Amino acid sequence: MIVVMDLHSTEEQIKKVEERLEELGFSSHLIRGVEKIVIGAVGGNREAARERLELLPGVEKVVPVMAPYKIVSREYQEHGSIVKVGELSIGGEEIAVIAGPCAVESRETLLSAAQAVARSGARFLRGGAFKPRTSPYSFQGMREEGLEILAWAREKTGLKIVTEVINPQDVELVASYADILQIGARNMQNFALLKEVGRQEKPVLLKRGMSATIEEWLMAAEYIASSGNSNIILCERGIRTFETYTRNTLDVSAVPLVKQLSHLPVLVDPSHSSGNWKLVAPLALAGLAAGADGLMIEVHPNPASALSDGPQSLTPAHFHELMQKLAPLAQLMGRSLRQEALVS
Amino acid sequence: MIVVMDLHSTEEQIKKVEERLEELGFSSHLIRGVEKIVIGAVGGNREAARERLELLPGVEKVVPVMAPYKIVSREYQEHGSIVKVGELSIGGEEIAVIAGPCAVESRETLLSAAQAVARSGARFLRGGAFKPRTSPYSFQGMREEGLEILAWAREKTGLKIVTEVINPQDVELVASYADILQIGARNMQNFALLKEVGRQEKPVLLKRGMSATIEEWLMAAEYIASSGNSNIILCERGIRTFETYTRNTLDVSAVPLVKQLSHLPVLVDPSHSSGNWKLVAPLALAGLAAGADGLMIEVHPNPASALSDGPQSLTPAHFHELMQKLAPLAQLMGRSLRQEALVS
Amino acid sequence: MIVVMDLHSTEEQIKKVEERLEELGFSSHLIRGVEKIVIGAVGGNREAARERLELLPGVEKVVPVMAPYKIVSREYQEHGSIVKVGELSIGGEEIAVIAGPCAVESRETLLSAAQAVARSGARFLRGGAFKPRTSPYSFQGMREEGLEILAWAREKTGLKIVTEVINPQDVELVASYADILQIGARNMQNFALLKEVGRQEKPVLLKRGMSATIEEWLMAAEYIASSGNSNIILCERGIRTFETYTRNTLDVSAVPLVKQLSHLPVLVDPSHSSGNWKLVAPLALAGLAAGADGLMIEVHPNPASALSDGPQSLTPAHFHELMQKLAPLAQLMGRSLRQEALVS
Amino acid sequence: MIVVMDLHSTEEQIKKVEERLEELGFSSHLIRGVEKIVIGAVGGNREAARERLELLPGVEKVVPVMAPYKIVSREYQEHGSIVKVGELSIGGEEIAVIAGPCAVESRETLLSAAQAVARSGARFLRGGAFKPRTSPYSFQGMREEGLEILAWAREKTGLKIVTEVINPQDVELVASYADILQIGARNMQNFALLKEVGRQEKPVLLKRGMSATIEEWLMAAEYIASSGNSNIILCERGIRTFETYTRNTLDVSAVPLVKQLSHLPVLVDPSHSSGNWKLVAPLALAGLAAGADGLMIEVHPNPASALSDGPQSLTPAHFHELMQKLAPLAQLMGRSLRQEALVS
Repeated sequence: MIVVMDLHSTEEQIKKVEERLEELGFSSHLIRGVEKIVIGAVGGNREAARERLELLPGVEKVVPVMAPYKIVSREYQEHGSIVKVGELSIGGEEIAVIAGPCAVESRETLLSAAQAVARSGARFLRGGAFKPRTSPYSFQGMREEGLEILAWAREKTGLKIVTEVINPQDVELVASYADILQIGARNMQNFALLKEVGRQEKPVLLKRGMSATIEEWLMAAEYIASSGNSNIILCERGIRTFETYTRNTLDVSAVPLVKQLSHLPVLVDPSHSSGNWKLVAPLALAGLAAGADGLMIEVHPNPASALSDGPQSLTPAHFHELMQKLAPLAQLMGRSLRQEALVS
Repeated sequence: MIVVMDLHSTEEQIKKVEERLEELGFSSHLIRGVEKIVIGAVGGNREAARERLELLPGVEKVVPVMAPYKIVSREYQEHGSIVKVGELSIGGEEIAVIAGPCAVESRETLLSAAQAVARSGARFLRGGAFKPRTSPYSFQGMREEGLEILAWAREKTGLKIVTEVINPQDVELVASYADILQIGARNMQNFALLKEVGRQEKPVLLKRGMSATIEEWLMAAEYIASSGNSNIILCERGIRTFETYTRNTLDVSAVPLVKQLSHLPVLVDPSHSSGNWKLVAPLALAGLAAGADGLMIEVHPNPASALSDGPQSLTPAHFHELMQKLAPLAQLMGRSLRQEALVS
Repeated sequence: MIVVMDLHSTEEQIKKVEERLEELGFSSHLIRGVEKIVIGAVGGNREAARERLELLPGVEKVVPVMAPYKIVSREYQEHGSIVKVGELSIGGEEIAVIAGPCAVESRETLLSAAQAVARSGARFLRGGAFKPRTSPYSFQGMREEGLEILAWAREKTGLKIVTEVINPQDVELVASYADILQIGARNMQNFALLKEVGRQEKPVLLKRGMSATIEEWLMAAEYIASSGNSNIILCERGIRTFETYTRNTLDVSAVPLVKQLSHLPVLVDPSHSSGNWKLVAPLALAGLAAGADGLMIEVHPNPASALSDGPQSLTPAHFHELMQKLAPLAQLMGRSLRQEALVS
Repeated sequence: MIVVMDLHSTEEQIKKVEERLEELGFSSHLIRGVEKIVIGAVGGNREAARERLELLPGVEKVVPVMAPYKIVSREYQEHGSIVKVGELSIGGEEIAVIAGPCAVESRETLLSAAQAVARSGARFLRGGAFKPRTSPYSFQGMREEGLEILAWAREKTGLKIVTEVINPQDVELVASYADILQIGARNMQNFALLKEVGRQEKPVLLKRGMSATIEEWLMAAEYIASSGNSNIILCERGIRTFETYTRNTLDVSAVPLVKQLSHLPVLVDPSHSSGNWKLVAPLALAGLAAGADGLMIEVHPNPASALSDGPQSLTPAHFHELMQKLAPLAQLMGRSLRQEALVS
C-alpha cells in the first residue's frame, strides 16, 4: 500500500500516518520527493486500512498494491482449474458447450431443444426454472416443475443440466436437481446468495454483472470460494455501455484478462451479449478465438414462440451449423469439441 | 406498438405479421412509405408481443409506444405520492433528511451519531445492520444485534430508522424493527427480495442500481407495487460511468425526470454518489435545487475510524453546517427543512 | 512514481528497473513487503517514464503520483482565476449567463433572441456560425455571414458574443469577431485547434468532451495554456452514459471537483446535458447550487422552427422565469446575478 | 417517422401535427389506440423534421424509422466494397494486415520495424508523423520529416504506408506521401477534417471514436462519402467503458454489426483496444473470427524504448508468432493471409 501525502502536509501529519500504519500492523518507509512525499507500507492488515488512512489530515490518496481477491487468483494457484461435473469437466482440453432455451416452458419444448443440442454435440443443457425478469408482468418461470422437467430431460438425453437460482432459500432445492447452479448477472453481487451456493458442493456458473468490473467479478467468485466451494466457472455475458445497437457489449478482452488474473475457467455467452441471434455465431467464434473454455448459447426449437429471449435464440439448424464452424476453430486453439452424439 | 418492415419484405410476410398481431389481440394499420412499410398496432396484449414479432421474417424492428411500468407511472396517478412514516411523511412539503453512519458499529457510536443528526434537524436515522460488501473479508454487519441497537437509538432520539435488507428471508425480521426498509443499489434487480418487501406494509426506500436505466428502476418499483405495497421512495445514488475521480456519477437529471414519469417521491444520496465527503455538500445542494424530496447522507462521529465508508462520511460539525445551507435553499424551492431539534 | 514488481521478479530484474530509473533522472527507494516489492521513484523526468518502465521484465505496474496537468492546476495557482472579457469577467462574484440560440439563422431571429436574453439579465450571447453536426445533410451554419450578424447583434444589445470555432484555419477569423471563442465537446481533443486558440489572446470556453475524463479535460486546457493563453473557461455539458432518457448525463460532481483540482472558472450547460427543455431549469439550478461560476443556456424565440437543437431550447418567457429563480439562489451561494437590463 | 401523441392530447393538437407534417412534405396516417394516438408519416423531408415535430404541443415523442446514413449503408449497395490501394485491396479475399510502430521515431527504427513486419507477411506499414497526444508535453511527432521517412521505408520494403492526418490544412501534404490516410479516434467527429479527406482521392481509414455509437461512426463515414470519396475503411479500436483493467473495451460485436449495416470493409485494432501487448494476440484472433477484413497492429523493434505506446506494442518475434496463428484462422474463415515475404 502506498500513501501519497498532500503537497502541503506537515511533519506532524506525516508522523500521524506513520503511527496509524504501525497500529494496523504495517511497517512504513518514507520517500521524500521534490514535490510529493509518499509512504510505502507493507505487511499489515489491509482490510479497511485504505479507508482509515485516506481520512487522516494531509493524506491525498492511498494506492493499493495487491489485488483484493486471493483464493481465486492466479498467484494463489498457478495452473488452471478444471471443474468436474460428474464424468465431464470444464476448463480442460474439451470446449464445454452449454445450450438450450432461455426458460423451461414445457416438457415437449425442452426435450425437443435438448435432443437437438445433444445431437449437434453439446454436453450441457441450459434452461431457467426461476427467471429474473425486468418486468413483474413477464413470465417468471415454472419453478420446481421446471426443475423436474430438466431432470427428466437429463435422463432422456444424458446432458448435464445448468439452471439458475435466484433466492438463497431455493439453493438446496435447485442443487438437488441441477448439475451446475447458475448465478445470473443481476445477482452477481447478491452476497447472501453467493454465500449460500458457496456452502454446497455443486459447481457454480457465475455470470459477470452487467456493470461489474473484472475485479468485482473476481471478488464475487471469492465470496463463493471463501464460503467453501471452489468449483466455480466464470461466464462473460456482455457489459452495459452507451452503444444501443446491441443489448450489451461483449467484453471479449475479459477472457484473456481473467485467464491471466485467475485460475478459474471462463465461458462466453454470445446470446445475452448481443440480444440478437444474427450476432451469436460471430461472437461465439470470437469468444473461442480469444481463449474461452466454453460457450453458453440459447437454442429454442421455435424462437418466434419462445416465452422469453426469442430474438437472441438460435434455431436447432443454426446451432448445428455453428457447431460445425466451432469444431475446427477449437482444434486450431489446441482444444477439442464434440460434434455429433447419439441421443437415446 | 409499431412494427417496421424490412426494405425487401414481401406481401406474404406483411400478411403474416398482420395475422400474428390479430392473434395477440391487436388491431393493425398498414402504412406504405416510399422506402419502408410500417404497421401500427393497438389494443393487444403487449407482454412478449415485441419479442414474438421481431423474429417474424421481414420484420426489421418493433418500437414500443407505451412505457412498461404502470402503477408507479405519473399517467396512473397525476398527483405526487406522499409516503407516510408514522406521523412523518416523505414527498410532502417538508424535505426529508435521513442521516447516520454507513453501518451500525456499536451502541455508543450509533447513539452519538443519532443525537448529533437529530440535533441538526434530521428526522430519520440510517445505519446498516446487514451490509452488502464487495469483499467477503470486509465487515458484514452486526445483523439482529444491529437492528436492536437501531431500535434503542430510535427510543432515545425519536428518529425514525431506515435500514437495509439484503435477503428475502430477513424481510420479516427487519420489518419488525425498521420504520423504512432499504433496498440497496446492488439488489435493485433482486426480484425475490422486491416481491418480499412488496408483500409487507412498511415503506420501502429503493435505491437505483449503479447501472440501472431509469426505466429499469421504475420497473423495480413496479415489482414492489404490483406485490401490494405502494409506499415506495426512490433514491438516486450515482451511476457507473467511465469517470474515475468520483466513485459514481450522480445523475442529477434523474430527479426531475423521475418526477415527470412517476408519482413517487425521490431522494438524493450525495455520499454514495461521490465516495468523497468533500463533494457531499455541493451535491446535496444540487440535488435539492433539482427538485429532490429529500437527502440521504452518511454522518459518523469519527469518520477516520468507521468500519466502512469513512471517506464519504461527514462529521457531525460538517453535517450541521450543511443543514444550515440547505434550509434557505429548501425555502427557495417552496419546501421546508427542520433545522434544530430538542433531543432527549 | 511507484513501480510495483511482480510476485516472482528476480533480483536482476529489480536491479534493471533501478538502473533505468537512474537513467531517467529518478532517485529510487526499494521497499520489500511480504508479498510484493515496490520501488518509489522521485525527481526524474516523468514524460514517457511510465511506459518505458512498464515493459521491463518483472514490472507489474507503474502508479503515477503526480497529476499530469501543471499550469491549470490548483497547486500551481491557489486562488481562483477571473477571466476578463472586456469590462466583464467570469469567475468573479457575478454569475455569468451566456444565452442565445444554438445557431445563427438570420438577422431577425438572432436579434430577437439577443434582446430577449439581455432583457432578462444575460450579459453574453451565444450563437453558432460554424456548426459541427452529426449528419452531413444537416444545416452547417452561416459561416462568416453568421459572425457578422453576431457582431451586429452585439452592437445593438451590448452583449458579449461567444461562438464556436471548429477549424484551426478559422481561428483568426472567428477571433476577429468573437469576445469568447468556444471549443465544442467534439473538438476537446482536436489538439491542432487547441494549440491555435492558445496562440491568440481572446478567452476560450472549453467544453468537456462527451467521453472525456476530468483529467483529459484539464489536459486539453493545459494544451491551450501551454501555448500561451491562460484565459480559459471550462464548461461541463454532460457525459455519455448508458442512460437513454437524456441525451447526455450532466456530471454535476465535476463542478466542485474541478474547483478543487484547478483554478479555472467552470460553467454548466444544462441544455446540451439533457437535450430536453423541460430539464433545463432544474439542471441550471443544480449547477449553480453545486458551485458553478455561470451557465450556458439555449434560448430561441421560436424553438419549434429552430434549425437545430429546438427541443432543448427555452422560449424567452421560460428563460425569463428561470432567471428569476436563479437570482435568489445566486445570492444564497454568496454570488450575484443581474436580473434585468435596459436594451437599446 | 412515427409521431406518438400524449395521453391527453387534444383534437386540435393532433390537427396541428398533421398540418405540420403536410408542410414538411409527409403524408400522415392516424392510428387511434385505447391509450395512445400515433401518427405514421411517410415520404417527406426528414432533415430537422424530428426536432420540429417534437416541440409541438401534445407530442410525446418522434420515432425515426430510417437510418440516417445513406451512401455507406448496405441498403444503398448490397455487395461489400473492396477498397483498392494501388495493386492491393482491402475488403476482398485477402486479410489486410497493417503493422508498425505507433510513431515514426527515426529512419533506423522505422526501417527495422518495416522489414520485420514485411518479412512476417504484412503488406501495410503504419507509423504516425503527426501525433495527437493527450499531454502537450508528450512527443508530438516528426511531422513532414516523418512522412519522408515513411516514403523511404516504402521504397525499401514495398509496403503501402498508412499514416494519420490531424489538421485539415495538412491533408494535401499527407496525401502526397501516404497510400492510406488515417483519421484517428479523437478526430472521428472533426467534421472539417472529414470533409477535407473526402475531397481527395486516397483511401481513408476511419477509426471509431472512443465514445462513438455505431450510428455516429457510420455518419462520420457518410461525411467523407458525401464529400466525394467512397474509398473508406472502418476500424474498430475499442470504446470507453467503466472497465479499467484495459485501456478501452474492444467492441467485437461492432464487426458483424457494421457488416450488416454497411458495405464498407472493417478492420480491428487490438493494440489500442487493450493498451496491453499481452492481450493483442487473443484480440487479433477474436477480431478475425468475428469477421474482420483485416487488422491494425502496433509493432516496435524495441517496445521498452518506444516514444509512445510501448506497452501495447508487439516485438517483431511476437508479431511473427501471431501471424502464424492468424493464417490458418483466415483460411477457416474462407479468407487468406500472406505469411512470408521477400524483402529487398
